[in-house]
Amino acid sequence: MRYAVFGTGIVGRTIAAKLAALGHQVVVGTRDAEATLARTEPDSMGNPPFAQWHNGHPQVRLVSFAEGAGGAEVVINATSGTGSLDALTAAGADNLAGKVLIDVANPLDFSAGMPPTLNPVNTDSLGEQIQRAFPDTKVVKTLNTMNCQVMVDPSRVAGEHTVFVSGNDAEAKDQVTELLLSFDWSEAGVLDLGDITTARGTEMLLPVWLSLWGALGHADFNFHIASA
Amino acid sequence: MRYAVFGTGIVGRTIAAKLAALGHQVVVGTRDAEATLARTEPDSMGNPPFAQWHNGHPQVRLVSFAEGAGGAEVVINATSGTGSLDALTAAGADNLAGKVLIDVANPLDFSAGMPPTLNPVNTDSLGEQIQRAFPDTKVVKTLNTMNCQVMVDPSRVAGEHTVFVSGNDAEAKDQVTELLLSFDWSEAGVLDLGDITTARGTEMLLPVWLSLWGALGHADFNFHIASA
Repeated sequence: MRYAVFGTGIVGRTIAAKLAALGHQVVVGTRDAEATLARTEPDSMGNPPFAQWHNGHPQVRLVSFAEGAGGAEVVINATSGTGSLDALTAAGADNLAGKVLIDVANPLDFSAGMPPTLNPVNTDSLGEQIQRAFPDTKVVKTLNTMNCQVMVDPSRVAGEHTVFVSGNDAEAKDQVTELLLSFDWSEAGVLDLGDITTARGTEMLLPVWLSLWGALGHADFNFHIASA
Repeated sequence: MRYAVFGTGIVGRTIAAKLAALGHQVVVGTRDAEATLARTEPDSMGNPPFAQWHNGHPQVRLVSFAEGAGGAEVVINATSGTGSLDALTAAGADNLAGKVLIDVANPLDFSAGMPPTLNPVNTDSLGEQIQRAFPDTKVVKTLNTMNCQVMVDPSRVAGEHTVFVSGNDAEAKDQVTELLLSFDWSEAGVLDLGDITTARGTEMLLPVWLSLWGALGHADFNFHIASA
């Protein structure tokens, strides 16, 4: 499968590396590939510059959002949530039409410092905003409720745990579920919450996730839905 | 121990019955005891009128918020979230001073229909509002992330699962943890998230809880935090 992963941060890199390791054709999409590759300083989160990661993954080309979306069968949005709509607009609705868009981003607003707040929240979600802005694209929200290392290697967390899936298109959710199984998620671990409005609830898990990160002192944890 | 449970809905009834069964002295607090007992119709959620429940639990007196708070060692807020501050104001800051207040309510706003939204949300929480309004009271937020049957009988959910605890006072949280253990929660199941600001995250679990209720078709489920 041909994937375009949008976002050059640690989430995008981690997913792109996993997809490449699984034998998929992968490009990473960014606003300005030349500028991204020219950076030599760590990013705001302290991650090494993209160029350093890229040296270790030369088979993953860095391209513009539009080129990435145009050539891909599936697009994964791993941009920062506050910039996601701009990134997808730059990709172009025509390049995204008819395709599955996997949205793993969260609309975290760090402008007032820590902890970040969510925007939108409560009556809307980033997943819904994207679906409204690109009605011909099949948006599936998933993987946004955990650390990116856990996304692609669920065995980092002991026992059963859950990855939520939200979206309006049943076939698109089936296709995303297949991808999750290839990341070694179990069938029982994939929980279809319903349509894209249920992304509201999964994005709103972020505040407790951040508290748990502080309380546990590490990010190798995840939500599990225990049931009768 | 002497408990006052505020709220005559299904959550208050369920907790009051459990406390009474454990041998505690329990009163239920309400705005107007006479009016509550006079009601003969089911409530807006379809639950039988309070008087019917009360006939089965005659040892639990129904009293005003102020009388309940004045006589109790520990107060449990199980009122509807949008009315909690009014109920606690009616109880009186003096009657609540120095006491542990267990807040199990969620600020769900049903005024625009289903699904409800949260108010406050994102930058504040009901738990924090109560703590700010009653600075001499030790507010502990807990049990608000699950169905009330699960609150008092965690064995309804299979396997390990989690009850979150948020509050500024360590001793108060220890005391609440003892109560949770008496409800048959395991030590490993009680997760101290930190101070009362972490109530924001647990209240924000409600939207995904509601989606899960729909997806699973029953309420005997709960969040478990799986970890490395």
